[in-house]
Amino acid sequence: MDWGAVIVAAGSGKRMGAGMNKAYLPLNGRPVLAHTLEAFEACGAVTEIVIVAAAGEEAQAEALAREHGIRKLTAVIPGGAERQDSVYAGLAALRAEGALVHDAARPLVTPERIAACCAAAEESGAAALAVPVKDTIKLSDGGGMIVSTPERSLLWAVQTPQAFGRVELMDAHERARREGAQATDDAMLLERLGRKVAIVESDYANLKITTPEDLPIAELLLERRRRDGLERNE
Amino acid sequence: MDWGAVIVAAGSGKRMGAGMNKAYLPLNGRPVLAHTLEAFEACGAVTEIVIVAAAGEEAQAEALAREHGIRKLTAVIPGGAERQDSVYAGLAALRAEGALVHDAARPLVTPERIAACCAAAEESGAAALAVPVKDTIKLSDGGGMIVSTPERSLLWAVQTPQAFGRVELMDAHERARREGAQATDDAMLLERLGRKVAIVESDYANLKITTPEDLPIAELLLERRRRDGLERNE
Repeated sequence: MDWGAVIVAAGSGKRMGAGMNKAYLPLNGRPVLAHTLEAFEACGAVTEIVIVAAAGEEAQAEALAREHGIRKLTAVIPGGAERQDSVYAGLAALRAEGALVHDAARPLVTPERIAACCAAAEESGAAALAVPVKDTIKLSDGGGMIVSTPERSLLWAVQTPQAFGRVELMDAHERARREGAQATDDAMLLERLGRKVAIVESDYANLKITTPEDLPIAELLLERRRRDGLERNE
Repeated sequence: MDWGAVIVAAGSGKRMGAGMNKAYLPLNGRPVLAHTLEAFEACGAVTEIVIVAAAGEEAQAEALAREHGIRKLTAVIPGGAERQDSVYAGLAALRAEGALVHDAARPLVTPERIAACCAAAEESGAAALAVPVKDTIKLSDGGGMIVSTPERSLLWAVQTPQAFGRVELMDAHERARREGAQATDDAMLLERLGRKVAIVESDYANLKITTPEDLPIAELLLERRRRDGLERNE
C-alpha cells in the first residue's frame, strides 16, 4: 500500500506569541517544518508529501522544502479556516491509497514511528500514534468543579501521524462537515461513525510545539537523541 | 484557617532509572526535595510541614530540611506500601485544621500557587491545582483500540498540592481503605463520596519529575523563571 502525507502547517501560532507561524521557528538551527518534512522524506512507506500552508505562506513553505531536499513534495496548498478544512484540502491533493495526517508542529517524529503507524493502519484500517497518559485526568463540570476521574490506564494522549484509507477519511470529513461535527483530530471523525482506530504506542518525545516553553524542550530532546545515537554507534 | 503540608517523598523512582529516590537528585545544584520544601516554607498560609520519606531515608530527609533552613518541619515519618498509605500516615502526623498534600517530585510549585489552593479550599471545602489538557485524549478499550474522545474542554490534568479539611480527608482515606478503593490522587477519594473538589488553574511548569527527560526540562523552566524574574525587577 502506498502512503501520502498531509503536513498541516497552517496554524497561526497564537499560543506561541512569537508573531510568526511556529513551523518556521528555528529548532537546533533548522526550521521546525524542515525537521518534520525530513522524517517523512526518510520514511520508505511514504511516496508523496503535500504541505498545507497558511494562506500567503505557500511560497515560503515550498522554498523551505526545496532547500532541505524534500523530493517527495508534490504540492503546497493554502489551508482553510479550521484545521479540519486544512486537512481536507490536503487530502484532496493526494493520490496515494493511504493518507497520513501530521501536524508540522511535531518535528521530533521519526521515520520508524511513521512506518509503524502505516503498518498498523494496513492491518486495522486506521491507526494513530499515542502515549499513555501520565497525569491523573479529571472531568470537570465546565464550571470549575471536578466531576470524576476517568480510569487512567484506559487513557491515551493521541499524537500525529494518524493513518487512514484516503477515500474513507475524506468521506468521514464530508459527513462531519454536512453534520456540523467538530473534531480535534482525524481519528475522531472515524470514531463517530463507529469505526475502529488502532493505537500505536509512541514516545513522549514526539511532542507538539504549542507554547514558548516547548521549543527549548524540543531542542533538549533532539540533543539527547543525537547523543544517544552517537553513543550507540561508538 | 491554618494549613499543614504533607510532602510525599516516599516514591522508589523506578521510572527514573537513577538507582535512587528522585527527591534527592540535583536540580540546578539543589536536591529536588529542597526546592519543594522551600516553596512551602515561603508560603504564609502554611504553618507546619511533615515529610513522608521512604523507609530508611528519614534521616537523610531530615538532614536535608535542616540544611535548607526549613523551620516549619514538625516530623519526618516513614511511608507505607502505596502512595495512599504514605499520605494517610502523613495526615495523622499533622495538627492543622487544613491539610495540603503535595508530591516532593513537583519542585517548581510556587508559594503563590500553594496559597491559591488553600484559599479555594477555604471557600469550597476542597481544591486541587490543575491545568487544561493540551492533548486530545482518547479512551481505549484496554486492547489497543480507541473507543471515544472525551470532550477536551472539560478535561484537566490535576497536579498537587491538593487542599482539604484534614479530618474529612482522613475519613475519606479510612473509607477507601475499608472498601478497597484505589486512587491515583486524594481528590478522587472525596469524589467517590460525592463531594465537590474545586479546580485551581495552575501552570504547565509545575511538572512532576517522573522520567529522566523531566529533570533537564525542569532545570530549563527554573532558569527561565529566574530570568523572567530578573527582567521584571530591572
